[in-house]
Amino acid sequence: MKKLIQEKTHFLNDMLDGLKITHPELDVIADAVVVRQSKKQSGVALVSGGGSGHEPAHAGYVAEGMLDAAVCGEVFTSPTPDKVLEAIKAVDNGDGVLLIVKNYAGDVMNFEMAQEMAEMEGIRVETVIVRDDIAIDVVEQRRGVAGTVLVHKYAGYLSERGTSITEIKEKIEAFLEGVRSIGMALTPPAVPTTGQYGFDIEDTEMEIGIGIHGEKGLERTAVEPVKAIAKRLIETLETEVTASELVVMVNGMGGTPLSELNIVTKYVSEVLEEKGKTVKRWFIGDYMTSLDMQGFSLTFAPYDKAVVEALNAPTTSHYFNN
Amino acid sequence: MKKLIQEKTHFLNDMLDGLKITHPELDVIADAVVVRQSKKQSGVALVSGGGSGHEPAHAGYVAEGMLDAAVCGEVFTSPTPDKVLEAIKAVDNGDGVLLIVKNYAGDVMNFEMAQEMAEMEGIRVETVIVRDDIAIDVVEQRRGVAGTVLVHKYAGYLSERGTSITEIKEKIEAFLEGVRSIGMALTPPAVPTTGQYGFDIEDTEMEIGIGIHGEKGLERTAVEPVKAIAKRLIETLETEVTASELVVMVNGMGGTPLSELNIVTKYVSEVLEEKGKTVKRWFIGDYMTSLDMQGFSLTFAPYDKAVVEALNAPTTSHYFNN
Repeated sequence: MKKLIQEKTHFLNDMLDGLKITHPELDVIADAVVVRQSKKQSGVALVSGGGSGHEPAHAGYVAEGMLDAAVCGEVFTSPTPDKVLEAIKAVDNGDGVLLIVKNYAGDVMNFEMAQEMAEMEGIRVETVIVRDDIAIDVVEQRRGVAGTVLVHKYAGYLSERGTSITEIKEKIEAFLEGVRSIGMALTPPAVPTTGQYGFDIEDTEMEIGIGIHGEKGLERTAVEPVKAIAKRLIETLETEVTASELVVMVNGMGGTPLSELNIVTKYVSEVLEEKGKTVKRWFIGDYMTSLDMQGFSLTFAPYDKAVVEALNAPTTSHYFNN
Repeated sequence: MKKLIQEKTHFLNDMLDGLKITHPELDVIADAVVVRQSKKQSGVALVSGGGSGHEPAHAGYVAEGMLDAAVCGEVFTSPTPDKVLEAIKAVDNGDGVLLIVKNYAGDVMNFEMAQEMAEMEGIRVETVIVRDDIAIDVVEQRRGVAGTVLVHKYAGYLSERGTSITEIKEKIEAFLEGVRSIGMALTPPAVPTTGQYGFDIEDTEMEIGIGIHGEKGLERTAVEPVKAIAKRLIETLETEVTASELVVMVNGMGGTPLSELNIVTKYVSEVLEEKGKTVKRWFIGDYMTSLDMQGFSLTFAPYDKAVVEALNAPTTSHYFNN
């Protein structure tokens, strides 16, 4: 396996050092927490994070109109509770801190512990858990994937408008009721810290229903032309997202060239049109990746005017508006 | 080879159809020319382009503050003169049309023919040729690579300020005197239209001095830690870019995850610091890619206050400010 790294054990620190160079408006505290240099003085503070390897998530969304802090674990590894606590304390301004957590056992446990510790210090903390991955049958076990980035944006908008923590949590949970994602891959991610590939796969096969940490799909089949792939994913999403007007995200997995994401978009659009669905807002780009995996995920949300207004509002993140 | 495509022969058209969905502010004319829907009514019009496979270049830079049109050839293949002529005629507003051409025999010939045809129709056309790739010894044979994107931005800024075509051409040529790039790769690009890889390479090797069309490097060596790679590239660039204050672009080749680009940035910065050089402006992201190749290029330009002001000016391109 070939990677552009210095030493396996320095992956996270080196990446964050590089991020700081690219984004001088950010700071890294406690070796793992990315915050804005100019702390938000009022409004609910938003903290997200999780294992690394999903860049630009989550640190790339620490920006005006999105997150206040991202807690970065090692590659595909939850950050520890003390780091989450550092993040909470760094961004708290008295208006409460909302944790946006993807549904993985480690993340949920560690963010919850941090929440309890922060509450003992008198900080108001609430949590929303994102479980948008329809590939998993049991709802409670569904993983948080690309839909999380829409939550960062929507919550960021609400916070900037002075919405209370109770109301943001309610609105986000209502929004998440409708958000579903599913991913596919042609290749596994190559994990730089272990030297291992997420899974083995033949050069004629693809995985449907993959996770973003090298978890193989729920189904392996021969590679199909992209319209057939789009149809598969759409017909799975349709079982739960029945709205005729949609917000659609075509999310690259990190190693997929933009040309192919555009081709995917064309055929997703074509299949949806054939089904009489209208896409009111598209998001196309690398939002929630899995290192250098080649593949994409599709996220559907029912169209809602207020939500789209929030998603369209400005942010200083360079990574959201592709 | 596995690719997210429908049919090999539809790659370009499908990609442009997808681009139009992502960017409703753009139009595709003559099957291969991307233009802004709202034509610029005054100021020099800027046309660039070349083979496809370099996304977001060139169509992603058709935006306010950058290009007026991008002429898209098939993958790694020059667009024909008639398409370039269509682009020129579509964007001409009487203030002249500047062609920004990467130095490849086919591109240079086809853009030149289009220029001659347009001039016969009474349109004022000028051309600048970008040859920033220091990997090639003979200056006249140097390829145009990532530095081209800085030219799009600088020229776009000048055009929006009403600078004459003569003056823009002079300023760009003066700027290009100082711009040098060099690329490296861990993997070759997988070309969807031919089913071929750009070159063969072992899992322990890297290529230094690659092109962006699957041309192998001038040197093949064992993979090194990224600081050693950064040092190699910097020491080549230094032979011609001697300024102590620099603009530096770290350009991903399409399949390189953002995490690794950030790690590259850290060590480029470290090596430059050891050499007493200051970076006044960084650009980090996928600007001029080679399909799904894993690797990066480094571009250096001597710092110039006016140029950086131009590079920092707003643009509606979603792909420039990463």
